[in-house]
Amino acid sequence: MNSQQDWFKILTDCKDNIKKAIKPHFKTLNEPQPYLGKGAGGDNMKPVDLAAEKAIVDTLQSHGISFSLISEESGFEEYGNNPKECHITIDPIDGTTNLIRGLPFYASSIAVSKKPIMTDVYAALVTDLHHDITYMAQEGKGAYRDGEKIKTSQITSLQEAVLGMDLNTYKDTDIASKLTNLIHQTRHIRHYGANALELCYVANGLTDAFVDIRGKLRTTDGAAGFLILKEAGGLVTGVDNQPVNVKLDPKQTLKFVASGNTKIHETILGLIKT
Amino acid sequence: MNSQQDWFKILTDCKDNIKKAIKPHFKTLNEPQPYLGKGAGGDNMKPVDLAAEKAIVDTLQSHGISFSLISEESGFEEYGNNPKECHITIDPIDGTTNLIRGLPFYASSIAVSKKPIMTDVYAALVTDLHHDITYMAQEGKGAYRDGEKIKTSQITSLQEAVLGMDLNTYKDTDIASKLTNLIHQTRHIRHYGANALELCYVANGLTDAFVDIRGKLRTTDGAAGFLILKEAGGLVTGVDNQPVNVKLDPKQTLKFVASGNTKIHETILGLIKT
Repeated sequence: MNSQQDWFKILTDCKDNIKKAIKPHFKTLNEPQPYLGKGAGGDNMKPVDLAAEKAIVDTLQSHGISFSLISEESGFEEYGNNPKECHITIDPIDGTTNLIRGLPFYASSIAVSKKPIMTDVYAALVTDLHHDITYMAQEGKGAYRDGEKIKTSQITSLQEAVLGMDLNTYKDTDIASKLTNLIHQTRHIRHYGANALELCYVANGLTDAFVDIRGKLRTTDGAAGFLILKEAGGLVTGVDNQPVNVKLDPKQTLKFVASGNTKIHETILGLIKT
Repeated sequence: MNSQQDWFKILTDCKDNIKKAIKPHFKTLNEPQPYLGKGAGGDNMKPVDLAAEKAIVDTLQSHGISFSLISEESGFEEYGNNPKECHITIDPIDGTTNLIRGLPFYASSIAVSKKPIMTDVYAALVTDLHHDITYMAQEGKGAYRDGEKIKTSQITSLQEAVLGMDLNTYKDTDIASKLTNLIHQTRHIRHYGANALELCYVANGLTDAFVDIRGKLRTTDGAAGFLILKEAGGLVTGVDNQPVNVKLDPKQTLKFVASGNTKIHETILGLIKT
């Protein structure tokens, strides 16, 4: 059974190999990038994205794992003899724009599940590739930053909170007005431009919540971060306060509020529901 | 004459001494901070802010400089025999909330001018204290990142641009609607929570513009970054496209658009004027 494998070890190997694989690409990131077509998630693929994806696939294969890959780049691929027994949902590089521009926020995201369903994820890694900080979680075993157990913040007031928010390309005036309600009440808003990592900031108590109700974020970006947040004591729901129980698919998008504690979560939902 | 002193050397010494001075404070940042009253800029002062300020003052005095200090923390102070000949405008720690929460974005900002007027600043330093990256400029001598000359980006399209924007505590519905126009047109929005540093990101071409029309940012945060941006080839104006020619004063606030090039600047102004 894959769920009994040592996923912390396997995911750590993936992270080490991603780091090695992307290193040669840093020299050419300032140059115009070749056109490699659009990835399954709809963004233009870059050589660095594909190098990170190959590092993940090769590492899993070296551990003898059969798996179905669900990737923001390659879409669906099957590897090994029993690919249906394990689903691996990845965004090889989350925050590629930051990486290309030299902004120090980009990560890899890997989520492991038996079925291709968000709430079925039982092991996860998000690695901050710039600062070399790795967040991991396994269902029922807690969440860790570089091996140390992490917990979410208990801050409940929006006046004290630091709140992550993705505003990019929000064109729906209904969403804009809901977010404006929230912005009015919040003292410190941030957006670092790598959503998988920003979910881990909530898990680690560096921020208090992360809100993305654009309906643009893909399951490949959120799958790992959601488990890490939950295992750290946080919660994530849709705007309707229901679990985000969607199919893991590079085309499937998400709207969610991810919070460190129930009280701030309810406050945020109250403001964006109106 | 102070303007003929080697300000790159003096400011580098300030930076080295700030780094040493704040280091012991990292151990206690997770603990509740003692109440030290409000700084001249209106925020609660933290021991780490005052340690950084003292490091700057001591360094300038060790170089035998007479100066009037304009600080976000202590307000106005005079040092030496001829304090009116040189004005030093500082935010000892820009992004104290980030520092306290463990978010890797905080900086020191130091601006040197003959008179206490924004457009009179002739030497400047902003140092990214987490990543140990230092931006400096002198009037007519260009802008530098760790000694290497930097230039702004030439990206002109908001669809391609990465745009910094400060949304914190914007309660004025008029400002909200102007920003919404801009958000609708922009693909990549960021806010890292340390505005002096985010001005340097525009100077360094990591982002393409930074917009803060809340009327909340203080001159102590902007004074150094504005010179660094201009010396890197960028521009900064008010919403009315006029120079931001204000008094350097910890209570004086700013509204501005800071851009890498004239074309994107005009596009942004067009959207927020409407």
